[in-house]
Amino acid sequence: MSDEIAENGTANGDVPEIELIIKASTIDGRRKGACLFCQEYFMDLYLLAELKTISLKVTTVDMQKPPPDFRTNFEATHPPILIDNGLAILENEKIERHIMKSVPGGHNLFVQDKEVASLIENLYSKLKLVLVRKDEQKSAALRAHLSRIDGLLERRGTRFLTGDTMCCFDCELMPRLQHIRVAGKYFVDFEIPASFRSLWRYMYHMYQLDAFTQSCPADQDIINHYKLQQALKMKKHEELETPTFTTSIPVDINDSNNTEE
Amino acid sequence: MSDEIAENGTANGDVPEIELIIKASTIDGRRKGACLFCQEYFMDLYLLAELKTISLKVTTVDMQKPPPDFRTNFEATHPPILIDNGLAILENEKIERHIMKSVPGGHNLFVQDKEVASLIENLYSKLKLVLVRKDEQKSAALRAHLSRIDGLLERRGTRFLTGDTMCCFDCELMPRLQHIRVAGKYFVDFEIPASFRSLWRYMYHMYQLDAFTQSCPADQDIINHYKLQQALKMKKHEELETPTFTTSIPVDINDSNNTEE
Repeated sequence: MSDEIAENGTANGDVPEIELIIKASTIDGRRKGACLFCQEYFMDLYLLAELKTISLKVTTVDMQKPPPDFRTNFEATHPPILIDNGLAILENEKIERHIMKSVPGGHNLFVQDKEVASLIENLYSKLKLVLVRKDEQKSAALRAHLSRIDGLLERRGTRFLTGDTMCCFDCELMPRLQHIRVAGKYFVDFEIPASFRSLWRYMYHMYQLDAFTQSCPADQDIINHYKLQQALKMKKHEELETPTFTTSIPVDINDSNNTEE
Repeated sequence: MSDEIAENGTANGDVPEIELIIKASTIDGRRKGACLFCQEYFMDLYLLAELKTISLKVTTVDMQKPPPDFRTNFEATHPPILIDNGLAILENEKIERHIMKSVPGGHNLFVQDKEVASLIENLYSKLKLVLVRKDEQKSAALRAHLSRIDGLLERRGTRFLTGDTMCCFDCELMPRLQHIRVAGKYFVDFEIPASFRSLWRYMYHMYQLDAFTQSCPADQDIINHYKLQQALKMKKHEELETPTFTTSIPVDINDSNNTEE
């Protein structure tokens, strides 16, 4: 494994050690990558480590050249991977379930809030549409969705989505807001309006939190993540086509002067 | 080596066998790739094989997974590579020189024509500028250059650049014209004007020639070649930057209501 970050908490107390394997940056294999689910679970577990209910170890794996022991253990599985007491959990839904049901303190993160759950669930797909279509209609839809989140935060007046402490929804939302902010600006000059004051206040508080700043990829890694996705998609397009050879001519060739030598 | 194409000529006559190693397509390792110098020397040698002064063997190597014997022999060298009587020639200028000086019949391809030489030498760099800058000024410069070539062909009234038979300049120009046509159209909607009738007549004759059609990559391979170049260049841009983290806020946070719980 390329890099190990020992986070808060100690392994030699009563608290269990949880290991989270995350994807490395595609630019520099020693940096954290722009993987949304990796950051989400990193934040969940970081909060629990701060509360000293667990000790957290975060391992970064460069998927462009995974170390031999990673390939032996996990073959083609991509991070995030959670390892608890020798048990590796490979699927995102199972990782979330495991944090909620089996990691000490985890159940406190999983607040019931149907309004918030349904409000944030389709936000990210709107960014993807903006990046693919690059038209004002899709940007307007993303802006409208952010406006609804701004509205909820204003109405509730709380620091975070469900109250004044962080919960699983905040760990889900904030990495996606950061991708919207950085990639939206870079690729289509999309900006979160300054008039969304409650949303900006929310992000401001997040930027002060270790759980966010320790888990957040660099802007360049976020941008590069989408560039590579686009390049692969563009490549796929040609891969699926039957090879063609442009040899047609747009004009009549009056060849009488030149062919009969 | 992934694929071997036995071209015209036989190995068991008096004529020497020349092997040309060319880059494979980045889409399908069994297809020819969009490598301009590979196609240029392929055409030169194809013409000589048609004249039966040599026998030509063309080998396609997938550089994404070169076969072990290729790596052993040539390490990081990229095709084109010419092999003549056990001697491997690795550099483009030396390959050209070798075809001219040492391959039977080769000297006939290398016609002296300063006007043509200087007319075609900077054409390709104008396509690169069009693809990078994507502005009308660069497109106009490319169009003006093509217009000068059209003018020369019209004035001379010959089928090819220096006469009614192909020479080294035709093998240099035509692969580049094809890239201009296919990539120009795809990336920036650049079209060679139909009014360039002599240029189109020239291309028409080329499209009838085995030396061109046998060596020409598919449109998709040409397009993909530039897409991968752009993706690598885009990636490089982020690689050179110091990682930054966008955490500034565009508004003043009036936090008096929310921070003192």
